[in-house]
Amino acid sequence: MHVALIQHAWQNEKEAMRRKSCEMIAESAYKGAELVVLQELHQGPYFCQYEETHLFDLAESFEEDMAFWSGIAKKYHVVLVTSLFEKRTAGLYHNTAVVFEKDGSVAGSYRKMHIPDDPGFYEKFYFTPGDTGFEPVDTSVGRLGILICWDQWYPEAARLMALKGAEILIYPTAIGWFDSDPEEEKKRQHDAWITVQRGHAVANGLPLVAVNRVGFEKDESGALDGIRFWGSSFACGPQGEMLAEASTEREEILFVDIDLERSEEVRRWWPFLRDRRIDAYDGLLKRFID
Amino acid sequence: MHVALIQHAWQNEKEAMRRKSCEMIAESAYKGAELVVLQELHQGPYFCQYEETHLFDLAESFEEDMAFWSGIAKKYHVVLVTSLFEKRTAGLYHNTAVVFEKDGSVAGSYRKMHIPDDPGFYEKFYFTPGDTGFEPVDTSVGRLGILICWDQWYPEAARLMALKGAEILIYPTAIGWFDSDPEEEKKRQHDAWITVQRGHAVANGLPLVAVNRVGFEKDESGALDGIRFWGSSFACGPQGEMLAEASTEREEILFVDIDLERSEEVRRWWPFLRDRRIDAYDGLLKRFID
Repeated sequence: MHVALIQHAWQNEKEAMRRKSCEMIAESAYKGAELVVLQELHQGPYFCQYEETHLFDLAESFEEDMAFWSGIAKKYHVVLVTSLFEKRTAGLYHNTAVVFEKDGSVAGSYRKMHIPDDPGFYEKFYFTPGDTGFEPVDTSVGRLGILICWDQWYPEAARLMALKGAEILIYPTAIGWFDSDPEEEKKRQHDAWITVQRGHAVANGLPLVAVNRVGFEKDESGALDGIRFWGSSFACGPQGEMLAEASTEREEILFVDIDLERSEEVRRWWPFLRDRRIDAYDGLLKRFID
Repeated sequence: MHVALIQHAWQNEKEAMRRKSCEMIAESAYKGAELVVLQELHQGPYFCQYEETHLFDLAESFEEDMAFWSGIAKKYHVVLVTSLFEKRTAGLYHNTAVVFEKDGSVAGSYRKMHIPDDPGFYEKFYFTPGDTGFEPVDTSVGRLGILICWDQWYPEAARLMALKGAEILIYPTAIGWFDSDPEEEKKRQHDAWITVQRGHAVANGLPLVAVNRVGFEKDESGALDGIRFWGSSFACGPQGEMLAEASTEREEILFVDIDLERSEEVRRWWPFLRDRRIDAYDGLLKRFID
């Protein structure tokens, strides 16, 4: 399966942002991609750097957004993984990945389940934790385990997708550095982000792709300087082996061939699912065991 | 906390093996180690390369083994993590890590919960899956989350130890290459082994040490050539950052300073435990969700 991971910067307005994505999708399709994955909240800025009620306006266009990306998937005949700001009703919003089939139909969607909240990433203000559960989306290119950003840090999320038969793990994401952090801290964060995801691939014997934003986005509130999104979109195989990795600074389409059949072989040698101690995992349903 | 990871090869007989370990423990203690971790089944060969009933004889000495290592912990005044073959009753054996306190008393033990079985690693014949659950061991140097080898591939095991307040994850292990595997496969396996464990450190905000055997051990049955244990004992911090790593070929004591206080700071920034979706994790208790 030929996959395109589309990594780009905020273009200062939504139309320009859509244009950028669409140009890259067109090139991806032209070069044979069947599956195209966009970064988290790819239509807009990463707006969660501060809390303002007017920013919920960004979700008002959800229905139109759906129609627009449906049209793009159909036009380029690709399975398209989008990341949208969903208004469900007044006061109820989600960070939602909608997957479109090659004919433009909705294959399925996933509402971000784990919501972060730390300085510069005030997502708990904006996003209601998802109620979709961890359900893969069936498409013509395979059963896709879509998860979003903060989900990346949770082995539970990856495992549940694997237990439901996902054939690949896919993470649209928006993560970066604060320029004020020391270099060694930046390195630790960046390495941790890659490592924990490669770990999910290994533990589940599944390939994985992560698509991250790139470029600097100012904190318009002035409270912090802003976030330097670190790009580094990547793909790894079911032993966690790196297949492709994008730069930390440039916009780019990262193409990668992923062989979904490889998991069968890897899991025959390393049959981790066989030996799970489900009789002893009750504690996983607890917050803490004290 | 000054920790020593003791990585060595099979010495062709138990007494020589004990002597080797004890010399290295003596040096570790002399150089200030408070916690010493031995490799998996450190008293003997990795005997699970084939299935023979006479090999259960190796577990007959369990009581004497306990007394011996208790004496060593006391003599060198270290917290000592051992890995023993435990006979519990006729026909019931475990792969058991026993932790001794600095005064030689038993701080606690852990019976390997996840048992592998693949060519050259016929552990399901020898080891009854543990019934201790995932319980950390309290010691004078901290609450130790002891897990063993195959447990390394299970995020559930690491998470449960973290939820029970473990301050460090510790894995005695015995893993290696088959010489007949191609170099790229060897690299994938070795990287996967390191990556998945670093991933557990990241996901749980905990430091981690793994202590592996080194050197070649022939398959005495002649069915396979044998296993080249890849050493590479290592320690990482709570962001998965590598702190120290031993060679793939040499016997060595790997010394590392681990700051258990660092987890507090890391978890304040990355409070993964805060956002776990315990309302949506029921499926983790299932074998597969079909």
